[in-house]
Amino acid sequence: MKVSKGRSFLFRIPEDEEFGAFINGFAKRHNVLIGTVTAIGTLRNPKIGYFDEESGRYRVMELSGTYELVSLTGNISIKDGEPLAHIHVALGDSDGRLWGGHLIEGEVFVAEVFVQELLGEILERKPQKNGLALWDAEGL
Amino acid sequence: MKVSKGRSFLFRIPEDEEFGAFINGFAKRHNVLIGTVTAIGTLRNPKIGYFDEESGRYRVMELSGTYELVSLTGNISIKDGEPLAHIHVALGDSDGRLWGGHLIEGEVFVAEVFVQELLGEILERKPQKNGLALWDAEGL
Amino acid sequence: MKVSKGRSFLFRIPEDEEFGAFINGFAKRHNVLIGTVTAIGTLRNPKIGYFDEESGRYRVMELSGTYELVSLTGNISIKDGEPLAHIHVALGDSDGRLWGGHLIEGEVFVAEVFVQELLGEILERKPQKNGLALWDAEGL
Repeated sequence: MKVSKGRSFLFRIPEDEEFGAFINGFAKRHNVLIGTVTAIGTLRNPKIGYFDEESGRYRVMELSGTYELVSLTGNISIKDGEPLAHIHVALGDSDGRLWGGHLIEGEVFVAEVFVQELLGEILERKPQKNGLALWDAEGL
Repeated sequence: MKVSKGRSFLFRIPEDEEFGAFINGFAKRHNVLIGTVTAIGTLRNPKIGYFDEESGRYRVMELSGTYELVSLTGNISIKDGEPLAHIHVALGDSDGRLWGGHLIEGEVFVAEVFVQELLGEILERKPQKNGLALWDAEGL
Repeated sequence: MKVSKGRSFLFRIPEDEEFGAFINGFAKRHNVLIGTVTAIGTLRNPKIGYFDEESGRYRVMELSGTYELVSLTGNISIKDGEPLAHIHVALGDSDGRLWGGHLIEGEVFVAEVFVQELLGEILERKPQKNGLALWDAEGL
């Protein structure tokens, strides 16, 4: 859907916060109902998910140690009446190898974040048959 | 070049569409001549390319199965008189390992996309000696 | 912090330039004091860093050859009185495997860049006890 630009925020999340919870709380406090999120930094002990189409569930991988947050791309929309960030990450280990997927959890060592609020109709995630909660798809 | 902001779009591509073809069609339908594209989601059987300087051609890798679309970064400009998206992707397998490069093809399982239209002079890709189609470079 | 949108730039960096130095010079020439940077393209012989919490220093990895610049995410703020880009990259080798981290250096073969200037209070990097130069963290 067509949206217009709202407020923009550039900030650093304090150390030891959980990334997703912080962004969801930030969106709630600032009333950001639709938006985009990007970030770089360093995360500790991130949990990432791979969505398995067959089972309709995420396979969870727990990485241990500190990882460069090489890319973080996400969006904010409404689920169960509250703003929810859906986030994917690429994470670099000490050998420079990259790991990633759906961000389930990640403790912030450093996170420099850009949030762009978007203004438009409510965009809501609704449960689908495939096990995911998705927006209505855009027609052709 | 300096550009100004046009329309913004946040949407989900329907399942089974080919990602690049959908974005090119979207740009054409909505007359987006310059822009940026980002997305997260899940792609099936993506084909990615690595540009080989020596041969001046892309080496094509066909991945099979379903991959997390961990990052997708692209731009829209004009090639051969029509809007064309140039897209790079990072893709996560079921073990969380990342693969990626130039997106040649990818079937959408889920794709949540943000397109930012930019307004300015026509930005056109022209064939170069090295085998790529590029914009004029920005001088110093 | 809340920021507003300034100018936007979409451009290609000339071949053989060093990516970070070019962006820092671009920011200085155009007086971009706060901003975001994204790019795709191809880099030669990139050097990437992994920040080691224990030593408080970056472990530097020198990759040789040509890599797809799969994602590049960065921000611009002030350090030592001048605009400085902080950049993380994901890089694809000829087998499609991804490597990445903090971008220390990278020679441009192709770089298509989007810079978004942001307007607001000065955002400054200051040395921290952990060895990094960071902005003040956003409170809860």
